[in-house]
Amino acid sequence: MIEKSLIFFKSSSIPSYFVLVLLMVLHLQCSSVKGRLLSLSKPNPNDAAAYARWLVSQNSWGVLNTIAADLGGAPFGNVVSFSDGLPGKGVGIPYFYLTTLDPTAANALIDQRSSLTISEYPIGTCGKTDPENPTCAKITLTGKLILVDMNSKAAEFARSVLFAKHPEMEGWPKDHNFQVFKLEIQDIFLINWFGGPKLLTVDQYLHWKMKKLALSL
Amino acid sequence: MIEKSLIFFKSSSIPSYFVLVLLMVLHLQCSSVKGRLLSLSKPNPNDAAAYARWLVSQNSWGVLNTIAADLGGAPFGNVVSFSDGLPGKGVGIPYFYLTTLDPTAANALIDQRSSLTISEYPIGTCGKTDPENPTCAKITLTGKLILVDMNSKAAEFARSVLFAKHPEMEGWPKDHNFQVFKLEIQDIFLINWFGGPKLLTVDQYLHWKMKKLALSL
Repeated sequence: MIEKSLIFFKSSSIPSYFVLVLLMVLHLQCSSVKGRLLSLSKPNPNDAAAYARWLVSQNSWGVLNTIAADLGGAPFGNVVSFSDGLPGKGVGIPYFYLTTLDPTAANALIDQRSSLTISEYPIGTCGKTDPENPTCAKITLTGKLILVDMNSKAAEFARSVLFAKHPEMEGWPKDHNFQVFKLEIQDIFLINWFGGPKLLTVDQYLHWKMKKLALSL
Repeated sequence: MIEKSLIFFKSSSIPSYFVLVLLMVLHLQCSSVKGRLLSLSKPNPNDAAAYARWLVSQNSWGVLNTIAADLGGAPFGNVVSFSDGLPGKGVGIPYFYLTTLDPTAANALIDQRSSLTISEYPIGTCGKTDPENPTCAKITLTGKLILVDMNSKAAEFARSVLFAKHPEMEGWPKDHNFQVFKLEIQDIFLINWFGGPKLLTVDQYLHWKMKKLALSL
């Protein structure tokens, strides 16, 4: 459809270039709010590991849940940014950049039980399907939210992949003492089609190779 | 800018109508994935109650967190759709349409402690700001997730506002036994600017009048 419109442009001269620019601006604006980082088609829903890794790799933010002792032990969800690796080279483990000025990091230092929940909806690939419809995928990674030693190689890696996906993080206030946390995954809940959650072990998830994603970049 | 392009269209005849349709399609696609339901400008960040109600009213989905006894008592977040009322007439209380085939409803029937987390990011009003930046708002409503008697007037109201925002819900499989749940809010965590969470009581939140939103519709 877009190619066809470009043919029309040839016969309608300069004003159409203006429209083309408008189209591009609209498209860019559209993409920027979706949180989409790569333009990859989604995997087959039957390939649970591929789908789960795609969902984590494509998203840049989710809701990180901890236990809030100060709220009677209630589960407390918080909107956070994360990164599991450079685009196309994700490792499947979500890293976070958190400050204990925020309840989530403070909660995790008391009780590590945690989960990260991500929706396919903001990627923009669910179309008009409702966010709760099982064909609009969602994943919950449950495990332990662990503070990473700031001087370790793991922290260095985490900072590089976090800053690659979230450039403004590098400039966040030093006096807020942002630190690297990671989710040590113990259970995976993935729904990406009808028929209930997919059977997917942590081992299958972590050892899935990114070759398909890498090849298509 | 768009008006200007329409002037150009007059001189470039039919092919440009094609481009106009393309523009409209792109714009619609763009809007549909953001989860934006109304086109209202956001309130002043200093007006915490107005901002919180706007955030809840504008969104159609969030992450609902419960305690998962089968995962060692971990906080379990799940992507869900919700509605707090007809557009512009929200009551601030989120209603859900859940089945116990899904862990969230099943968890809530054992332990009502819960929270609903919503981000401003998917609405599309954060621009290029990172989802974790405090100026891109987020709200967590903590409380009890309660099953609403299906024959009550409250359930009737809830179904009407849920189906108004999520038309496909009405056709979801009857044998899944979807039921209405509501969040009885006990605490509000709102960040919509620098300087930490806003001071906002449940009373201030619930009794804020929607007059500003209603007037601008």
